Amino acid sequence: MTLRTSNQLFDAYFTADSMAEVFCDQGRLQGMLDFEAALARAEAQVGLIPQAAVAPIAQACLASLYDLDALSVAIATAGNSAIPLVKALGKLIAAEDAGAERYVHLGATSQDVMDTGLVVQLRRALELIEADLARLGDVLASQAQRHASTPLAGRTWLQHATPVTLGMKIAGWLGAVTRSRQRLVELKPRLLVLQFGGASGTLAALGEQAMPVAQALAAELQLGLPEQPWHTQRDRLVEFASVLGLIAGSLGKLGRDISLLMQTEAAEVFEPSAPGKGGSSTMPHKRNPVGAAVLISAATRVPGLVATMFSAMPQEHERSLGLWHAEWETLPQICRLVSGALEQALLVSEGLEVDAERMARNLDLTQGLVLAEAVSSVLAQRLGRETAHHLLEQCCKRAVAEQRHLRAVLADQPQITAELSSAELDRLLDPANYLGQAHIWVSRAVTEHFGLTA
Amino acid sequence: MTLRTSNQLFDAYFTADSMAEVFCDQGRLQGMLDFEAALARAEAQVGLIPQAAVAPIAQACLASLYDLDALSVAIATAGNSAIPLVKALGKLIAAEDAGAERYVHLGATSQDVMDTGLVVQLRRALELIEADLARLGDVLASQAQRHASTPLAGRTWLQHATPVTLGMKIAGWLGAVTRSRQRLVELKPRLLVLQFGGASGTLAALGEQAMPVAQALAAELQLGLPEQPWHTQRDRLVEFASVLGLIAGSLGKLGRDISLLMQTEAAEVFEPSAPGKGGSSTMPHKRNPVGAAVLISAATRVPGLVATMFSAMPQEHERSLGLWHAEWETLPQICRLVSGALEQALLVSEGLEVDAERMARNLDLTQGLVLAEAVSSVLAQRLGRETAHHLLEQCCKRAVAEQRHLRAVLADQPQITAELSSAELDRLLDPANYLGQAHIWVSRAVTEHFGLTA
Amino acid sequence: MTLRTSNQLFDAYFTADSMAEVFCDQGRLQGMLDFEAALARAEAQVGLIPQAAVAPIAQACLASLYDLDALSVAIATAGNSAIPLVKALGKLIAAEDAGAERYVHLGATSQDVMDTGLVVQLRRALELIEADLARLGDVLASQAQRHASTPLAGRTWLQHATPVTLGMKIAGWLGAVTRSRQRLVELKPRLLVLQFGGASGTLAALGEQAMPVAQALAAELQLGLPEQPWHTQRDRLVEFASVLGLIAGSLGKLGRDISLLMQTEAAEVFEPSAPGKGGSSTMPHKRNPVGAAVLISAATRVPGLVATMFSAMPQEHERSLGLWHAEWETLPQICRLVSGALEQALLVSEGLEVDAERMARNLDLTQGLVLAEAVSSVLAQRLGRETAHHLLEQCCKRAVAEQRHLRAVLADQPQITAELSSAELDRLLDPANYLGQAHIWVSRAVTEHFGLTA
Amino acid sequence: MTLRTSNQLFDAYFTADSMAEVFCDQGRLQGMLDFEAALARAEAQVGLIPQAAVAPIAQACLASLYDLDALSVAIATAGNSAIPLVKALGKLIAAEDAGAERYVHLGATSQDVMDTGLVVQLRRALELIEADLARLGDVLASQAQRHASTPLAGRTWLQHATPVTLGMKIAGWLGAVTRSRQRLVELKPRLLVLQFGGASGTLAALGEQAMPVAQALAAELQLGLPEQPWHTQRDRLVEFASVLGLIAGSLGKLGRDISLLMQTEAAEVFEPSAPGKGGSSTMPHKRNPVGAAVLISAATRVPGLVATMFSAMPQEHERSLGLWHAEWETLPQICRLVSGALEQALLVSEGLEVDAERMARNLDLTQGLVLAEAVSSVLAQRLGRETAHHLLEQCCKRAVAEQRHLRAVLADQPQITAELSSAELDRLLDPANYLGQAHIWVSRAVTEHFGLTA
Repeated sequence: MTLRTSNQLFDAYFTADSMAEVFCDQGRLQGMLDFEAALARAEAQVGLIPQAAVAPIAQACLASLYDLDALSVAIATAGNSAIPLVKALGKLIAAEDAGAERYVHLGATSQDVMDTGLVVQLRRALELIEADLARLGDVLASQAQRHASTPLAGRTWLQHATPVTLGMKIAGWLGAVTRSRQRLVELKPRLLVLQFGGASGTLAALGEQAMPVAQALAAELQLGLPEQPWHTQRDRLVEFASVLGLIAGSLGKLGRDISLLMQTEAAEVFEPSAPGKGGSSTMPHKRNPVGAAVLISAATRVPGLVATMFSAMPQEHERSLGLWHAEWETLPQICRLVSGALEQALLVSEGLEVDAERMARNLDLTQGLVLAEAVSSVLAQRLGRETAHHLLEQCCKRAVAEQRHLRAVLADQPQITAELSSAELDRLLDPANYLGQAHIWVSRAVTEHFGLTA
Repeated sequence: MTLRTSNQLFDAYFTADSMAEVFCDQGRLQGMLDFEAALARAEAQVGLIPQAAVAPIAQACLASLYDLDALSVAIATAGNSAIPLVKALGKLIAAEDAGAERYVHLGATSQDVMDTGLVVQLRRALELIEADLARLGDVLASQAQRHASTPLAGRTWLQHATPVTLGMKIAGWLGAVTRSRQRLVELKPRLLVLQFGGASGTLAALGEQAMPVAQALAAELQLGLPEQPWHTQRDRLVEFASVLGLIAGSLGKLGRDISLLMQTEAAEVFEPSAPGKGGSSTMPHKRNPVGAAVLISAATRVPGLVATMFSAMPQEHERSLGLWHAEWETLPQICRLVSGALEQALLVSEGLEVDAERMARNLDLTQGLVLAEAVSSVLAQRLGRETAHHLLEQCCKRAVAEQRHLRAVLADQPQITAELSSAELDRLLDPANYLGQAHIWVSRAVTEHFGLTA
Repeated sequence: MTLRTSNQLFDAYFTADSMAEVFCDQGRLQGMLDFEAALARAEAQVGLIPQAAVAPIAQACLASLYDLDALSVAIATAGNSAIPLVKALGKLIAAEDAGAERYVHLGATSQDVMDTGLVVQLRRALELIEADLARLGDVLASQAQRHASTPLAGRTWLQHATPVTLGMKIAGWLGAVTRSRQRLVELKPRLLVLQFGGASGTLAALGEQAMPVAQALAAELQLGLPEQPWHTQRDRLVEFASVLGLIAGSLGKLGRDISLLMQTEAAEVFEPSAPGKGGSSTMPHKRNPVGAAVLISAATRVPGLVATMFSAMPQEHERSLGLWHAEWETLPQICRLVSGALEQALLVSEGLEVDAERMARNLDLTQGLVLAEAVSSVLAQRLGRETAHHLLEQCCKRAVAEQRHLRAVLADQPQITAELSSAELDRLLDPANYLGQAHIWVSRAVTEHFGLTA
Repeated sequence: MTLRTSNQLFDAYFTADSMAEVFCDQGRLQGMLDFEAALARAEAQVGLIPQAAVAPIAQACLASLYDLDALSVAIATAGNSAIPLVKALGKLIAAEDAGAERYVHLGATSQDVMDTGLVVQLRRALELIEADLARLGDVLASQAQRHASTPLAGRTWLQHATPVTLGMKIAGWLGAVTRSRQRLVELKPRLLVLQFGGASGTLAALGEQAMPVAQALAAELQLGLPEQPWHTQRDRLVEFASVLGLIAGSLGKLGRDISLLMQTEAAEVFEPSAPGKGGSSTMPHKRNPVGAAVLISAATRVPGLVATMFSAMPQEHERSLGLWHAEWETLPQICRLVSGALEQALLVSEGLEVDAERMARNLDLTQGLVLAEAVSSVLAQRLGRETAHHLLEQCCKRAVAEQRHLRAVLADQPQITAELSSAELDRLLDPANYLGQAHIWVSRAVTEHFGLTA
């Protein structure tokens, strides 16, 4: 297309290059042309068209041979992209082999071409996403294990609570990745299917040879043969959009956590730095979460796009107008946004900078209060639950009122010191000793990850 | 709650009663109370609390014992429903058995109670939806078979195209139902899991007994034990919302088709009539699609609600504020709307009235043009594809220009009559003879349906 | 950008060229460069920078001088488009006039550049939309008047009801257009304002000269000066998105009506035909609503995009990450989709083909039942309301049961013929005599339209 | 309704009582009954029905007289709420005055009743929202002025930047409130209009008296008379929904800011405390942002609901099925959520606790770096822009590398001390001296607020 209206300024930031290639204009054309070439092969195979027609057709099925600008204009009149493409394809074939032209597109309808072409593109998109998710899973598994014993403040309602570990937090991100990988495996047989029905979906124009052609065509394209054409049953596509939406949401959570941990006040974790990345010459302390921004942005944009896919489901009769059209740019856009989010998630996760010392300092911001529960639990076994709880509550209140550390308040309290030695108090108020099952959570998430990958 | 603000006028229309019960206020409380009772049993089982405490706790775990108005007011201060409920539960137990009270809710956090309670409700919701979908599948399979040979106009872009059968159209609705049933089966192990992590998700307060308690609790509630608590990893819930969204969309398509077929101008298919249903005394011909309206309405509302679920995914750290809250009424509302849509889809499908004669008449609205392809296909074998196609194109144009039936124009045309006898023309222009694979589509969809059910 | 990833195949169909130009990559750059040039002029005006620096800066503020590919890559590192552009701008100026470079961008922050640049683009977008809406209003006003006396069936719940006129239906479309034009007028002072706050929004770096610079800058750009910078108060933009959403919805209603009226079974109204437009060689009767598809598609896509804008409102502190990013491609996309819908609405409305004869025939599809109310109303004055209503109800039921025309049934009924002569019956059953205030509705809508335009 | 399915547990938290009353079931009925009573008065006024019929009708137009359960069930059959209500109304009147019954609902259609009833409810909702917004504006104006000189760190990308003031931040919230108040004023004439068109919108059944009745009815209800009935032109309602969406978004921003400032690490600002509010006995330091959660929740939920309203716009012909139905619960829900958000915003703003000392401490977290710009600006005047900038950049880098305060590094640097005395350095590094136009922003926002209110 002409430079005049190019609209790709933010592509490198929001979209992975590989995905942009899948869904570029040439990618769309190639998907449709793959259908036409395979159809010719399938129809030759069952004897519907002469074998000699296949090569001239296949040779013309190369996206780079077409004039995108002319097609774009023709689409606006035709109302879809298949009609002008098939017309152009016919002309191209005719120029080489007048006889072969008549065998193009036999028995197919425009939506067969567009939908199957789309499925071919989505298969490639799915491969890219699965590969990135697997790689992200590996990175997160490795990081979760590396930081399995690194305590930091648990935060609920954005308030400090009992400690967790960075490994457990990362394992949480990993679990979501693993579940979405499972989902992609499950939906694949529903998504990767042929669309082939002819004018109204009955394949009537192909007579007796309809099913043999359909089967050969599916085999050619290595796609499943659905129970019937799905021109107006779009759940297959919307399901894929939804799982992409889940991925976007899970990565958004990862981005949200990182951006919060990077706050000047927290400063516990950072995106990897790079020259010119999110910095500021006058404010060298700034570490703008440039990658997290992409993750949050995708998680903000994808829900509306997924909703569009859902809204477009009640398509009329055997071919919809308007609702089908609403999908054309929306589903690719979802793929693109998720690819960009995955790219950034990989960058951020691989190079994650961790300040464990700052985490330890921050854990003490409440002067021990987040560990009151640890003391209370032990005391409960000696003094009874209620007495212990009441005692600790009093001490916590005093610590707050007097702005002292809980350790000091406890050491003042004869009822406490009667039960707990100074060493015991030190041990109880050390976050590293109050991490519960955090280690187990890491190993369970990692095991699930490798279980899927194996 | 008080009548003053009840807000249920449209419930009977938009929601199935059974689902309304699952998600009524008492249903919510009972889900949470089921968690508390099971927790007491689990903790007694591993010896953490005395066995004697279980009965007093369990007896208080009955939703009807609680004052909903008081709880509602307390929720507004506490910021969630678990804090006031656990407080009220404690009081109730204490009134019976002062000693047992201290053993309530041990090691759990508010979100453990709310989330697990929700999962218990969702399990019931899932059962209801699966049962309705299975029944709907049966009805559609039966209707598809009954009408497998009933031709009607295929309609693409809302324009008549080559004929299809009503059975094939219904089989299309069925296919979508079957696929969503498969999806529900697949997501179940991810959805039906325990939430149990304590304050920050580590279960630290339970020390060594954390995992035994968690396992016993999951077993008590017959839920899976997830790889780690998922307080801020919400993909499990959002996945369920998405599949409900797919169901809503697929039913919306069913409703869209029916409402279009019921149009005064088409009048091919009708929702079952009932006294007072969608009628009008002064306009007795009116057959308002009162059921289809619910299907379309649900398909219009659910996408926005599903988008909310997606938007709420990037939850902060170990417990979110605001995003978690955004789910509380949204997911139940999606369940409710889908239940109402299923109820109406069943009503409509079971009692579907079909006017096959009118379908036949409507098929002739274009005076044979929708069957030109049938004639052209046969002629192609005798005259060659291009000659045949060109000939038919001319005849079609003449038929339109002269407002005559294509049959009459063809009979006028010596090139045609030289090839095709009058009987052959009659046969070719009979829609019943140009239905392609419609029968196969029906049997494939029905087979898939029974394959799943078996 | 490179052809490799161009993604504009559907642009000519879904987007007006003029709007695509506003929001192309060069358009974005030019908006930002307009800000920088104006800032230099403003700062020179108040004496903050030397007058001699203005020309070198202004000369470099031409979008075509920049390498879009390089900028796109740099954006991915910088996290916004202003940082690399300002850097490139600086280099370009320095190459011409080393001294002038230091005066670029003085006191401004990246978001000042991006937001004000966007507002400059939105002003142009608004002009285009206002012009198209005004033209569409003219066309609709003219069509409403032309068809003010053309009866067709009123349709409620897609069922025939008492007659309306085509003019009244068109006037309904017009009314919505007029109201949205009013809305655009009202929001303009809120939308077309400067963004200028410097690092955190205080303009502190400009010291005493901050307000004079801000005022001069606003004047240079002919924008309003807001009460304070609005870096994270995005209601101005979202309001505009909403009104565009209203326009998309109203045009979707227009498209929905036209696509339904074009159905083979109705065939009352058609989009203008054009060579190759929505036709089919084998099905020459087909009149695919290629324009209506765009209207419905836009009305399906824009809601999700508008929701994204709303979702992105809770932006953090003085500059958001992620939520701000979510707007960058979304708002332009809304503008683009609405522009395409307007273009098609104009095409469709201007060339609307009307088959009034078919409307009359369709009006009789219920064999007079839709006019029972007319007879009943007159009889009520003579026999009393209840008697009249009861009588007509009986006749309607008989007409349906016996499949006869209501006119014939009425003529059979002595109670009717005693009151109404045959001529009176003819008059009452003529839709042209039961059109109520349809004429008034047309003239009121037209008056409102011209009231706004004048 | 029966307790069995009540569903109001979170109402007190998410909805203002006053708004819940407007949209409770009785509120809906009363709106419709207000229409019927006013219609009787209007028709009596123009002589269409006897004056004597008015009182019996009006007396029955009291919501409390109706059986909500029975109506709910009847709605499910009728497909809307007006048919069964009018039937029940008729019976109630007939029981008192058999003659009056025939004069009920004359010339009106179900949607006239439902839509006008809704508008009557929306007028009340609008009053409540305007009152709350005005009060919120007053509170914010007062808080903005009180804290006009309280410095805190500006935060961009969640990273510390140059200082702002709390007053300026609050003034930003205020500005958004003021703009939405303006929007409500502007939309009022479009929203508060009568719906009255009869069966297909022509008012044909009322003959010559149609316009006089319509005018009298509008006057009775104090509503505007629209240019024509708007049964399927829903932009009036969707516009209102959008402005409510803007309010939700702006309040969400307020809630987002407060929740971030309340973080344990920041601890600068707090929601007012109340007994049991968001606290934790074992973690007394916790200040859960219970109010902010509502604001963020509403800002997360409303976009999806607003999108539903937009999606429902393309309504068919003269009365839609499904799309109209999609509005019935959605628009009230938006009103309810916004009312709850406003209630919490008022609570939070009125009782806002501010820790100015902590703000000052946090401002120093970067050890002076956020004020480097202040020093650089002054030096630029003495050493030239580039030299100054380069010098400061070096000092900042050293400060970071050596983990020293910028003040100390600067004091070490002869080039600096040659230009700036120790006192000057102190002054420049005092945030209170680098607040730019923050004061002006406050006064401009306050002025706008009072300008609107006056």
